[in-house]
Parts: sequence; structure tokens; C-alpha cells
Amino acid sequence: MTRLATVTCHATGDTLWGVITDEGFSALSPHHVGYPTLREVIEAGALEKMAAQAGPVTHGPGEFSYQIPIPSPEKIICVGVNFPDRNAEYKDGKEAPPNPSLFIRIPRSFTGHEQPLVRPPETPQLDYEGEIAVVIGKGGRRIPEAQALDHIAALTLCNEGTLRDWVRHAKFNVTQGKNWDDSGAMGPWLVPFTDPAQITDADIETRVNGELRQQDNTARMIFPVAFQIAYISTFTTLVPGDIIVSGTPTGAGARFDPPRFLEPGDVVEVTSPGLGTLRNRVQDA
Amino acid sequence: MTRLATVTCHATGDTLWGVITDEGFSALSPHHVGYPTLREVIEAGALEKMAAQAGPVTHGPGEFSYQIPIPSPEKIICVGVNFPDRNAEYKDGKEAPPNPSLFIRIPRSFTGHEQPLVRPPETPQLDYEGEIAVVIGKGGRRIPEAQALDHIAALTLCNEGTLRDWVRHAKFNVTQGKNWDDSGAMGPWLVPFTDPAQITDADIETRVNGELRQQDNTARMIFPVAFQIAYISTFTTLVPGDIIVSGTPTGAGARFDPPRFLEPGDVVEVTSPGLGTLRNRVQDA
Repeated sequence: MTRLATVTCHATGDTLWGVITDEGFSALSPHHVGYPTLREVIEAGALEKMAAQAGPVTHGPGEFSYQIPIPSPEKIICVGVNFPDRNAEYKDGKEAPPNPSLFIRIPRSFTGHEQPLVRPPETPQLDYEGEIAVVIGKGGRRIPEAQALDHIAALTLCNEGTLRDWVRHAKFNVTQGKNWDDSGAMGPWLVPFTDPAQITDADIETRVNGELRQQDNTARMIFPVAFQIAYISTFTTLVPGDIIVSGTPTGAGARFDPPRFLEPGDVVEVTSPGLGTLRNRVQDA
Repeated sequence: MTRLATVTCHATGDTLWGVITDEGFSALSPHHVGYPTLREVIEAGALEKMAAQAGPVTHGPGEFSYQIPIPSPEKIICVGVNFPDRNAEYKDGKEAPPNPSLFIRIPRSFTGHEQPLVRPPETPQLDYEGEIAVVIGKGGRRIPEAQALDHIAALTLCNEGTLRDWVRHAKFNVTQGKNWDDSGAMGPWLVPFTDPAQITDADIETRVNGELRQQDNTARMIFPVAFQIAYISTFTTLVPGDIIVSGTPTGAGARFDPPRFLEPGDVVEVTSPGLGTLRNRVQDA
């Protein structure tokens, strides 16, 4: 499994991108100054070519920490209510909607793999949502659904962390419950997209302190990723490095009775066999 | 009135920033390569200092066109339902909400002054919303309301253009009605913020083909801008160049019976005495 990551070098504080191996991190960015971030690598269609050039490990375990894979994507669009039973969870008597609910998240609302997931002092209702995030390679507008998967460059994992009471703070929109600094996580790395099955038939699981809370397969999405790309690109031009967070299965903490929100020390793990495990420990701000 | 703008030079295609005078545009960016965009000028707290250095006009009328003032802000957060009678317009029998509705717009959903406002083939329901946009200067988190106005660097105008039926396409959120490419406009320029009254007591008017459709004063906002900055910075760190679109008065086209949506050739003008007039003509895609 090819894994490209963006990391902070502990010795210098520099941000680097490169390849993750079983031994550690192999920095590639110092040799490719024309590509300041993985976003530019994706724009050049060069993810796999770059990965193939990786030399020996430059940073061993403990010498680097993970950032989110693409530090400044143009946009991160999240899809809500996209697995069976998720619509029923709202108990509002309404039928499943004809189109996906979408909202936008700011990059700084996500932290990297193994970095603290922050519970703010304003609310105890920090919740998890395990998802697969799709990274756009080839941009476009009004992309036909039949060609949509050709526009994917890579996949990664996401804990689309949410402050539940703030989602309903206002008359409309979930913005303020979905955009707390470091309330979610993304990573650990990008896995190049080479086979449609990577997104049409992928298991996704979320565990809290090892206990399985969410488990489903992307084949059961109400709005499959190809549809998402077609629908979203109807109104906005997708560009390389854009991220679509594709929706979470049933089983978030808010759906338990009583709700089971995250507490300091809790460890959230989002796993998909082809992508690895995104792991974060909850910490108070 | 000091006016700083981002423009495209017709002769070279280059993006430049500089000062607008009654005679045209005076480019400053070629002399300040350390400041690629007005976002970096704002970050340095140098808007007025830069403006004071402007020399004679470098580009006369017809030699440049306007872009949105800050091409790539980290985030653009819009406030909904923020003037008297706006909540009543929804006719849902619900009380005015305790907190502002917020949504995020992608920069490419806005076009510059005098550029075409695009009505897409997918829907005829393009609508206008005249607003004042606040540009953050000094960043911060959990900014107290009493100090919030100190964090403003500049103001500009916004037509927060909306595709009405797409706002209600899904179960939650207005994202897909608010983010069509070039469906809104921002500009023409930034006016440095030097006096609280610029935002606490500003008239805002919207005209379509010269007919007054919206007219109110920011003093009547349900959630004043100082509150907006305090509330938004509770969950996200504001950074220089961030934009808060502060809310539209009653009178958008959707509120007429029957609705009066925009059609090709219509001219939308958003005006505030201290900021000028943002003008765009509607065009089919």
C-alpha cells in the first residue's frame, strides 16, 4: 500500500511531504521544491511517480508527527445522512431526501493522525463520525457520474468530529457544530486511487477505546461517491486537492440512549482495510 | 475614501493589487513582492500604509477588470437571517433563533465588480442578497465582543447570490444553493476600517435595474458584527483575510409573490455610502 503523508519534522519544525514505510518517513519535498504541498503533486498527476522515488527513511518513529495530508485544500465538502438507517436516526418522520445534505468544513477543524482531538470547554458533546475522504485529482465541472471515479486521485480516512449541540444552535445549518478547531481528524496518509473497488466496496469501521461503534461498507451508501462528484460538480468547479468527505454509517455517540459523547483520554480509531487506521486521543482544550 | 482592489491587467493577464482612484488603478503589488495578495498586506497590518504609497494611475479605465478583493481567503463565513422581518419571511411559525445561522461559501462562488453574475442552466432561481462583508485583520480565538471591532481590517460589499431551489435540495443545509460558481459578487474594493460607525451604522441598499429592493441599516442587525466575530471565533480561529458576510435585509426576490428572480441582462447594484457600489449584470452560463 503506497502511503503519502504530510508531516512536521520535530527537529526543525518544518512541514515536509513524502512517503510512509514500515520503518518511518522518507521525505520527498526537499527534492521537489516546485511542489510545496501534496496538493501540487496531485495537480501534476504525480502521486505515484513521486512515491516510487522514495529513498531510505529520513525520519524514524518519534522524529515526526502527522499533519492532515493536504494542508490547504481549496475546499472540503462533507456529505451528511448517507448510509441506511442514518435518515431514520433523525426520527423526524421525514423520508430519505432526494439529494445529499452537504456542508463545508474549514481545514483547521481537522487535526492529523495521532494528534489530540480537542474537546472545547464550551460543550461536552464531542462526537465521532468515521468516514472515507475522497481527494480529487483531475478537476472539472458538471462531471458525468459515469466518469466521476476517474477524477479521484487518492483516498484517506476522516473522523468528522462534531459538537452535537452546536449543530442545532441556529435556525439553519450545521456549520458551527462542524468547524471547531481540531475537533475532527484526517489521515494518516493518502493512498493513491487505482481501482474503483477502493471506494465502491470498502469497509469502514469506527472504534472508541477498542469498542466497535460504527461498521458499514461504502457499497451501501445512499449517494455513492460517483454520484457525489457528479452532483457537487454541478454547482462548483472541483479542483485538484479538493476533498469530499463521503458520509458516516449509523452509530455515532449521539444516537445512543443516553448519548455516549467522547471524554478526555478516549481513543477514536477509524479503520478501512485498504487505508489503515486513523487514531486520535481526546484531550480537553 | 481609500480603496484597495485586486484586478486583472488586460494587457498581460496578471493579477495585481493596488489602489483605485477616480482616474483608474495604481498598481502597488509589483513594488511589494513579499505581499502576493491583499491577504498578506492585511496580515502585516499595512493596508493604509500601502495605500498611502500609491503613485499615479498605471491602468486607466478599460485596462483592467476587478477580481474579488482577496482571491483566496482561508474562509468566508456568511450569516443568515439577521435583519428584522427576515425571520418572519420564512413563515415557519418559529421564533427568531438564539444564535445566528452560519454557512460557508467557497471563494469561486463570488465574482468581481462589473463581472458577469452567472445564472446556470440547471435552475432559473438566481436571487440577490445585498450585504456588507467584514474582512478580519487581527486574528484570534474566543475574541470578546467588546474588543471584536478591533479585529476588523476593512469592509467591502457583497451580493450573496443564491440559487433558491437548490438551497432546499436536501434534508439539511443550504450549501448547494449558496456555492454556484460566480453566482455572487464581492467588491469592488476594500475600504480600511478606521471607525466603528462604519459597521455599526451603515446603510445598505440593493437595486435591480435601478429599482430599490432592499434597504436597511446595520444598526438594526439581530446579531451585530461584534457579536458575530465573538460567536464565530468561539469555535474557529479567525485569521487575517477571513471574511464574514454579515447578513442581508428583507426584500430578496424570493420573498415577492410571485417571486422575482434575476434574468439575463438584469443589473444588480449593492450600495453603501461609505463603500461605494458593487455592480454586476446577470448572464446565462
